[in-house]
Amino acid sequence: MSAPTICMGQYLFQRIKQLGTEHILGVPGDFNLTLLDEIYNVSGLKWIGCCNELNGAYAADGYTRIKGSPAVLVTTYAVGELSAMNGVAGAYAEHAGMIHIVGMPARSLQKARAMLHHTMKANMDHATYIHMAAPIRETHAYLMDDKTMAEEIDRTIVACVRSRLPVYIYVPVDAVAVQLDAKRLDTPLDLTVQNKDGKIEAQIVSDVLSLIKEASNPVILADVLTVRHGGRELTRELAELTQFPCYSTPLSKGVIDETLPYYSGLYNGKVSFPGVAEGIESSDLVLNLGPLLSDSNTGGFTREIKDEHLVLLGHDSCQVKTQNFGGVHFLPILKKIVSELKANPQKYDLPRPTKAPRIKTPILNDLKSGEIKQSYVWQRLGRFLRSDDILLVESGTAQFGMPDATFPPNIKYITQTFWSSIGFTVGACLGAMVAVKELNAPGRIVLIVGEGSLQMTVQEIGSYIRYGFKPIIFVINNNGYAIERAIHGPKQGYNDVSMMWDYQKMLDFFGAREDNGVKAKSRATKTVEELEAVLSDDDFASGNSIQLCEIFMDTFDYPWRLTEQIAISRARMKREAEKLSAAS
Amino acid sequence: MSAPTICMGQYLFQRIKQLGTEHILGVPGDFNLTLLDEIYNVSGLKWIGCCNELNGAYAADGYTRIKGSPAVLVTTYAVGELSAMNGVAGAYAEHAGMIHIVGMPARSLQKARAMLHHTMKANMDHATYIHMAAPIRETHAYLMDDKTMAEEIDRTIVACVRSRLPVYIYVPVDAVAVQLDAKRLDTPLDLTVQNKDGKIEAQIVSDVLSLIKEASNPVILADVLTVRHGGRELTRELAELTQFPCYSTPLSKGVIDETLPYYSGLYNGKVSFPGVAEGIESSDLVLNLGPLLSDSNTGGFTREIKDEHLVLLGHDSCQVKTQNFGGVHFLPILKKIVSELKANPQKYDLPRPTKAPRIKTPILNDLKSGEIKQSYVWQRLGRFLRSDDILLVESGTAQFGMPDATFPPNIKYITQTFWSSIGFTVGACLGAMVAVKELNAPGRIVLIVGEGSLQMTVQEIGSYIRYGFKPIIFVINNNGYAIERAIHGPKQGYNDVSMMWDYQKMLDFFGAREDNGVKAKSRATKTVEELEAVLSDDDFASGNSIQLCEIFMDTFDYPWRLTEQIAISRARMKREAEKLSAAS
Repeated sequence: MSAPTICMGQYLFQRIKQLGTEHILGVPGDFNLTLLDEIYNVSGLKWIGCCNELNGAYAADGYTRIKGSPAVLVTTYAVGELSAMNGVAGAYAEHAGMIHIVGMPARSLQKARAMLHHTMKANMDHATYIHMAAPIRETHAYLMDDKTMAEEIDRTIVACVRSRLPVYIYVPVDAVAVQLDAKRLDTPLDLTVQNKDGKIEAQIVSDVLSLIKEASNPVILADVLTVRHGGRELTRELAELTQFPCYSTPLSKGVIDETLPYYSGLYNGKVSFPGVAEGIESSDLVLNLGPLLSDSNTGGFTREIKDEHLVLLGHDSCQVKTQNFGGVHFLPILKKIVSELKANPQKYDLPRPTKAPRIKTPILNDLKSGEIKQSYVWQRLGRFLRSDDILLVESGTAQFGMPDATFPPNIKYITQTFWSSIGFTVGACLGAMVAVKELNAPGRIVLIVGEGSLQMTVQEIGSYIRYGFKPIIFVINNNGYAIERAIHGPKQGYNDVSMMWDYQKMLDFFGAREDNGVKAKSRATKTVEELEAVLSDDDFASGNSIQLCEIFMDTFDYPWRLTEQIAISRARMKREAEKLSAAS
Repeated sequence: MSAPTICMGQYLFQRIKQLGTEHILGVPGDFNLTLLDEIYNVSGLKWIGCCNELNGAYAADGYTRIKGSPAVLVTTYAVGELSAMNGVAGAYAEHAGMIHIVGMPARSLQKARAMLHHTMKANMDHATYIHMAAPIRETHAYLMDDKTMAEEIDRTIVACVRSRLPVYIYVPVDAVAVQLDAKRLDTPLDLTVQNKDGKIEAQIVSDVLSLIKEASNPVILADVLTVRHGGRELTRELAELTQFPCYSTPLSKGVIDETLPYYSGLYNGKVSFPGVAEGIESSDLVLNLGPLLSDSNTGGFTREIKDEHLVLLGHDSCQVKTQNFGGVHFLPILKKIVSELKANPQKYDLPRPTKAPRIKTPILNDLKSGEIKQSYVWQRLGRFLRSDDILLVESGTAQFGMPDATFPPNIKYITQTFWSSIGFTVGACLGAMVAVKELNAPGRIVLIVGEGSLQMTVQEIGSYIRYGFKPIIFVINNNGYAIERAIHGPKQGYNDVSMMWDYQKMLDFFGAREDNGVKAKSRATKTVEELEAVLSDDDFASGNSIQLCEIFMDTFDYPWRLTEQIAISRARMKREAEKLSAAS
C-alpha cells in the first residue's frame, strides 16, 4: 500500500487551518483560481473576496492584529501582488504579518520564459516580482520543486508565526496538484518562540528580577510590539502582579486597561499630558516592553529615558541598562519573569501599591454646544466606547486626537502610527471584523476615519455590507487632508479632496438598503448638540446594524498633539540644517 | 554679478513644462508638500489630485497614451510610491511611461537613518523602496547631490521620453530648495530618438525598401508599440502611400482607420475573423511594426508568420527576414522609409491598390430584442462610437469583445491587454481626459468597464466629477469576474463580487448632483430594446454631461474570442504538461 498523499493546495490550506484560521482573504486572478478551489475542499475554510489587493492586504493586517495569528492573503501574479505591496509593507513595519500566497504561471511556462500577460521585463523572468518583494517579508517559499514543497510551506508558516512579519508563498498553477505526503500533517508545526541561547536568556531574566527587587520607583512602559508579538496578556499579568505604574504609547494605547489604578498615562516624549513624561523619566527602573521607537511614537524622538534606568525587552534584542543582547526575543523572558514573580511575590515585595498618584487626564474642552472642535471630539468619542470594543483609528488627525481619550477596559486599538498609510483602517476594519467573527468575541467595531483617507479605500465599505458586518463608522469631514495642512501648505490646493461626495448616501450606494434586506442609518452632525444626540441614541450605539455618523469640523482645527509634534520635527529639521550648513 | 539660479523644485517643473505638460497628477504626502508648492510657482502648471496612488499611476498611464508625451505623477515616500507600483509596472509593460516623482525624507535624516514614519527595515535604509522599484523603470535620479541634480533631472526626463518607459525622480524634502543654474533651462532637452549605428540603420532601410519593391503581396501589420513610440502618424502615412492591406492587433486596434479600403482586419493568430490570418500568413512580406508578442495579443502564440516573409521593426530590435539587429529603434527607420516612398513612389510602384479584397466583418448577432448578448453588444457599442472618440475598454470580457466591432475613423483606443490589471481603465480614463483637455481635442470619452473591475478603483469616478469631466460610462453588470469564470471555476464563489451595489446611485454619491451644479444621468438596461433606446438618445450620446449606462448580461455569457483564446491556452498547457511528464 502506498503512503497517503494530498495535493499541494490542500496541504497548504490544511496547514493554515491548523493555525485556527477560518477565512482566507484575497482577490482571484487567473493564476490562482485552481489554488482557490482547494479552499472549498478544506472543511471549515471560507473565502472572503476583497475589492482590490491593497485593501486585501490592509484587511489581512487588521485580521492579524485582532486574531493574534497571521491572516492569509491570496493574490495573483504581478498585478495582484504588486497592488498589495504597500499593505504588506505596512504589516512588516508594524509586525502584523500575514501569509501572502501568490499564484504564478505554470512552471513549464516560467521555464520557457513565455511572454504571458502580466509579464513585463524583456528577459521574461517571471521571478521579477519575487525579487521586488524581498524587503517586505521575513522569508518566502517559491514552490518550483515537488520534493521540497511540503517542507518549504511548513518552514514559511513557522517563520511567519514566530516573526510576526509577512511571508510569501509563490504557487505556480501546476504546483497546486502536486501530490505531497499527507502524513506530515499529523505532526503539528512548532510555532513557539524560543531563544537559542538559554544562558543569555537566563541572565537577562535574573538581571531584570534583581533590578525589580532593588528599584525604588519602577514603572512599566508597554509598547506596541508587546501586543504584536503575543505578549499583551503577559504584560497585563505583570502589571497586575507588580502594580507598578504603567504607561502606554500612541501605538500601544489600551495595552493596559486605562481604568486600572496603576495605569498612569500615554507616553509620547514631550507630546504627553502633564506629569506623564515626568513619571517615566524620574523612574529608576523603566521596564520598556516591545518598543517601537519611531518618530510619531516617541514625540519626535523626545523621549528621555537614561540607559542606567532602562530595561528594554524587544522582539529582536534586549537591553539591560547599558548592556545589549542582540537576537534575543522578549517573549520567553517575559514569561519567566512573570512566572517567577507569581511564584515568589514576597521575595520581590509585590504587589507594591503604585507610588505615583495616577495621572488625572485633563478635560481639554468640555463643549456643550456649537461647532465641533478637535479639542472636544476625541475625549467625547472615547466616552462613547464600551468595554471590549474594537476601535480603528485612521492615520491623520484622528490618530493624533485619540490619545486624549480614556478607554474603558479591554479595548483593542488598531492604528498605524508608524507606517501611516492613509486609508489603511477602511481595509483593516474588514479583516478585524473577520477575526472577531472567528473569535466569537464580544464588543462593537468602531471605525473612525477622515474623508480624505476614506476616499483612498472606500470600496471596502461595500465588503462590510456584502459580508453582513455592522460596524459603527465615524467619518471626520473637515475638507481635505487636515494632517498635511497642519504640516505644510494649509491653504494649498493639493491638500484639498473632492468635497462633492455625499457620505450620507454611501452605505445606500454600497448596498445597505431595504431592497437588500440590510438595515442601516447615516447621520450628519455639524454641532455638539447633534453629535451628542447621535452618540446617546441607543439604536446608533447598539451595533446591531451598520451605522454612519459624519462629523463636520473646521478645516484648520488640529489636535494639539499634532501641532506639537510638528513643531518638534520642524525644530529638529532646522537644527539638522544648521549643523549641515555649519559643516559645509 | 552672480549667475541666475532657480530652486531645484522649480527647475524640475520648468523642464516638465517644456514637454508641453500642463497638469501634474498625484497624491500629496508630508514628504512631497514643499515640492508640490513649486507647481504653483510655474505658470501654466496645475495640480490634479487623485484619490489614491494606484489610480494616480493608472491615470498617468492613460494621460501618456493620449498625450504622446509622458505624464507626471507625484507620490510620497514609501506608502505612496509602493501603492503606485502595479500601475507603474503596467505602464512599463505597455510602454506608456511616466515621470514618477517621489518625495523623500530630508537628506540629513536619511544619512542619520532616522526611524521616521513610513520607514520599515531594521537598518532604516531609506533607499529600500528605490531598490524595490528597479525592475519597473528605465532609469532613475536620486537627488542627493546638489552638484548633479540638474543634469540628473535632465538625463532622466530625456530617457523617459525616448524609451517611453517609466522613470523615477527621488526628491528629498530639503533638495527642493537647492539652487541650480537657471541658464540650463535655455537649452532645450534633446528628446529625439536616434540610432547610434547609422550604418545598420541605413542597411535596414535599404533592405526593407528592396523588399517592398520586390514583394508581390505585401501587408502591414501595425502593432501597439508603433503607437506607444510615436509612430502612429507615420504608420498611417505608410499605409496611405502604399495602400497595402493593413492589419491591427487586439492591442493596436484603431491604429489604422477601419473604414479605409485597405484596412483588412484585426490579427490575433487563430483567434481572428475568417480570412484575416490567411491574409497575413499568405503574404510574402509582412511589415510588422511595433510588435508586442504577448499571449493575448497573438491568439495564445498562434500567429504564424514565417521569418522569410517577415520584417519586424521594433523599439529595441529589428529583424529583416532571418537577420536580427539588436538595439535598433524603428522610429528613425520608419521615417526614412516613408520619406523615400513619398519622394519616389513610382520606383516602388506605389500606390498599389489593395490586392486582397477587404475582409468583410461578419455580423455576429443582429439582435433586435430580448436579453443583451455578448455576441451582439460589442458590435453595437462599436456603432455607437463617432470619429475622434477616445475609447477605454477594461480588461475582461470587454477587452475580448471589442475587437468584434468596427471603429469609425480616428478612434484612440486604450486597453491593457498585456498587463491586464483590472480596474485600470477607471484610473486611466481620468488621465486620458486630462490629456484631451490639454490637447483641446475633439471627440467624446467613452469608458466601458465591468462591475468587478469598477469596484477595484471606483473612487476615481469622484475625480471625474470633481474636475468637471463628462465621460460616457458603460458598466457591464454580469455578476462577477466573467473573464475568470470563463477561465476556471464558473460557479465558484471566488468569482463573485458584491452584487449589492447600486450603480444607478454611483454618480450621485460621488457628487454629480444638482446641489453641486452637475448634470448627470444614469440608466439601467436589461434588454436590447432598452439599450437601443439609450444609445439612440441624443442627450446620452452628446457627451455634454457625465452619463452612465448599466448593461446587464448573463453571468455565463462570454465573448467568442475569450472562449477560443482560453481553449488554445488550455491545449498548450496540456501539451506542456505531457512533454514534462514524458521527460521525467
